[in-house]
Amino acid sequence: MEHSDQVSTMLKVGPAVINLGLPLFYESMKSQGVSTLQVDWKPPAQGKKELIEALSRLFCEEVEKANKEAVQRLIDSQPVLVDICQAKDVIPGMDQNTILHAGPPIVWDRMCGPVQGAIIGALIYEGLAETKDAAKRIARSGDIAFSPCHHHSTVGPMAGVVSSSMYVFVIENKAFGNRAYCTLNEGLGKVLRFGAYDWDVIERLKWMQKVLAPTLKKAVEISGGIDVKNLTAQALLMGDECHNRNVAGTALFIKEMIPHLLKADFDCRRIKEVTDFISGNVHFFLNLSMAACKSTADTILGFPNSTVISCMARNGTDTGIRIAGLGDEWFTAPSGIPRGLYFAGFSEQDANPDLGDSTISEVAGIGAVAMAAAPAIVKFVGGSAQDAIRSTERMYDITVARHRDYKIPTLDFAGTPVGFDLRKIVEAGMTPIINTGIACKRAGVGQVGAGILDAPMDCFEKAALAFAEKGIH
Amino acid sequence: MEHSDQVSTMLKVGPAVINLGLPLFYESMKSQGVSTLQVDWKPPAQGKKELIEALSRLFCEEVEKANKEAVQRLIDSQPVLVDICQAKDVIPGMDQNTILHAGPPIVWDRMCGPVQGAIIGALIYEGLAETKDAAKRIARSGDIAFSPCHHHSTVGPMAGVVSSSMYVFVIENKAFGNRAYCTLNEGLGKVLRFGAYDWDVIERLKWMQKVLAPTLKKAVEISGGIDVKNLTAQALLMGDECHNRNVAGTALFIKEMIPHLLKADFDCRRIKEVTDFISGNVHFFLNLSMAACKSTADTILGFPNSTVISCMARNGTDTGIRIAGLGDEWFTAPSGIPRGLYFAGFSEQDANPDLGDSTISEVAGIGAVAMAAAPAIVKFVGGSAQDAIRSTERMYDITVARHRDYKIPTLDFAGTPVGFDLRKIVEAGMTPIINTGIACKRAGVGQVGAGILDAPMDCFEKAALAFAEKGIH
Repeated sequence: MEHSDQVSTMLKVGPAVINLGLPLFYESMKSQGVSTLQVDWKPPAQGKKELIEALSRLFCEEVEKANKEAVQRLIDSQPVLVDICQAKDVIPGMDQNTILHAGPPIVWDRMCGPVQGAIIGALIYEGLAETKDAAKRIARSGDIAFSPCHHHSTVGPMAGVVSSSMYVFVIENKAFGNRAYCTLNEGLGKVLRFGAYDWDVIERLKWMQKVLAPTLKKAVEISGGIDVKNLTAQALLMGDECHNRNVAGTALFIKEMIPHLLKADFDCRRIKEVTDFISGNVHFFLNLSMAACKSTADTILGFPNSTVISCMARNGTDTGIRIAGLGDEWFTAPSGIPRGLYFAGFSEQDANPDLGDSTISEVAGIGAVAMAAAPAIVKFVGGSAQDAIRSTERMYDITVARHRDYKIPTLDFAGTPVGFDLRKIVEAGMTPIINTGIACKRAGVGQVGAGILDAPMDCFEKAALAFAEKGIH
Repeated sequence: MEHSDQVSTMLKVGPAVINLGLPLFYESMKSQGVSTLQVDWKPPAQGKKELIEALSRLFCEEVEKANKEAVQRLIDSQPVLVDICQAKDVIPGMDQNTILHAGPPIVWDRMCGPVQGAIIGALIYEGLAETKDAAKRIARSGDIAFSPCHHHSTVGPMAGVVSSSMYVFVIENKAFGNRAYCTLNEGLGKVLRFGAYDWDVIERLKWMQKVLAPTLKKAVEISGGIDVKNLTAQALLMGDECHNRNVAGTALFIKEMIPHLLKADFDCRRIKEVTDFISGNVHFFLNLSMAACKSTADTILGFPNSTVISCMARNGTDTGIRIAGLGDEWFTAPSGIPRGLYFAGFSEQDANPDLGDSTISEVAGIGAVAMAAAPAIVKFVGGSAQDAIRSTERMYDITVARHRDYKIPTLDFAGTPVGFDLRKIVEAGMTPIINTGIACKRAGVGQVGAGILDAPMDCFEKAALAFAEKGIH
């Protein structure tokens, strides 16, 4: 178009304005009836020079290629439930004096209330202590090794506490051969993973050890393996995002297990006891799904030159991330407080900072990144179905690919955003969104709500600087 | 705004045009860069004078009030599965020489292939005939009374054939005390309801009579009643529209039944046989839901002055409707052919015209009117998630209310459109949308696909004229 044509068009139809950044100018144009589009532009990496330099080194072909390959591993993973065993028998490095917890490494004194509470409960459950005070003494004594679940191919929701005799789901990633583990979900409210350790919490854990786990173990053996990826893909088509909503996943798991339970020569009463327990807990599927996601994410641990996030986890004090190309190194920042819906009698005043390994869901391409599949979740924070769609759409901006097998009906069955790219996160100044339960900050209380928050930017910025310093090889 | 201001504004920002009706003018404006909005306006009742006069009498306060009250009955209904019995023991007017079929009344010679096929199967199943030819002779002899399911508080999917010894779900509408009935779903493909009558079809029906129905009956007795409304409300939050998609409804039904089945002193092998059968059929929930909808819709049969549709059903030759205020009278028109997805080896050439009582779903506020809840369905016809939302939004224009208990997540949990208003349908020139299975037009073949279509306008126009002639009282 010639310049004179452009001018004459402008005179005829009036100017059309695109405004970047500050919305003031946009408002002023709009009030004058000018057709104006507002673009929420921010300078890359919030204008921080050091980060912009780091990013300029990381946006290169080698990283691009590595990220594509890494994310392909996430997509190709085939998590299958192959067994249910006691932690001491299967989890690498697990023994009677080891207790695993959620999130990055942390010492007893820095642990938040719910993690300390869950550890007290685990020591009582294991018979290592009889009272709360005795348990605290042992915890402080140095006789117990505390170690992040993530260092043991394991994940745990909320406090994430795993002790030696607890049963865990054994997930095998059939595409890559690696295994991952997670305890069985205890239910809602006053439960160990939210820091409660009352008599009934311990009794429930013992029932799970004596009845629930061995019964399911037998059924899993008979089944020859339960395809968790398939259940997850179906659940995403049924209103779950498979982190804060597991209604469909749990129903599908029951449907899947029933024939094997019925084949297993158990008394009907025992099968009923087990299925009643699972039916009564809409989050039963969560722990299974988390172990599946861990077996997925572990396939990119140490993947050379990849800036894809391989782990994101919170211990209730710190939020930590790991980057594929940086191997085992953790980058941490203080955990935030979720915006959420609180149970009657509780408020944000009672909330513990963000907690748990369940963010492995988002790392593997489900959970908050699939929020558009589960508008029920955004209602926790007063949001609309449109907000749920926007949440997912924003996550496409900071991920590498769309999942081939995990799809979102309302987005015309588009694949979920998968593979957080550290570079895109830092460049956009936008961190992964997280769906989560909320624990009471005081030990012994339990769950007080559920909500949503953004991961803290600080750990991503540290990781980007470290990656640039390490360089591409 | 003063006139001179308006002119000066127009000169500044240019004209903005709203075009009603023919799109040609809109296209021309658009091509000249003028801001134009196209509105798909049609004259009311397609400009037919007789209908416009009828409508002018029906759009009045009495009808408005009656419709509100009628729809409140639909909304307040509380369908509960209370028993599973043989048809002859519970269905009013049912005996050994009666066979019920879907849709409005029809004689043998006018029946379509799949309905004739299903009747042949039912006669063999009942031991009244041994061969296809013998069955045909009996059917033609006049010894068998053919009667619409709808005349017996009953509904049947597709051919809808019910014979005396078949077991039926017994649904009680706890809010109003009335009961409704529907056979148990046989599965997909080559089945009686799609007009197949092979040896294996009959064998399956006999197994259902001997094993499936009595086992479920016992479990229902133990349960004290299964709340079908609650299951339906949940399924709508899980990607089902509860007519062409029943994946969640079926999984939830299994989850609900399991504890009662396990309590019922049956051998585990028998429970497995039953749950395997239900698990293997993603439409098992449909027949239960249809009986629930029938018990809902029957509460407005004969409701004075109400123009709400109380029944919509197809016998594969005719589509028939009944209007609340016009009692038992049927208004019919030839059935259309669905646009759909065909199984391998079949095409629209094989399709029987629209068939079955399952449109009771749409009458009760689920199924196609809730399409936005189940975008998977529109994929049958190459549609998008946005098309699914538009389908539901269009149905708000021809219904009386939004359902209080049936909600659609992607529409911010808005209630489903409920209570088709005959007046609005005729005025808008837009009939209810229908989701349906597609039967082969030849007897004995079975299902060939699934799809979507609009109900024929003709029966609604006839009903509007009849209603106006009867007048408001």
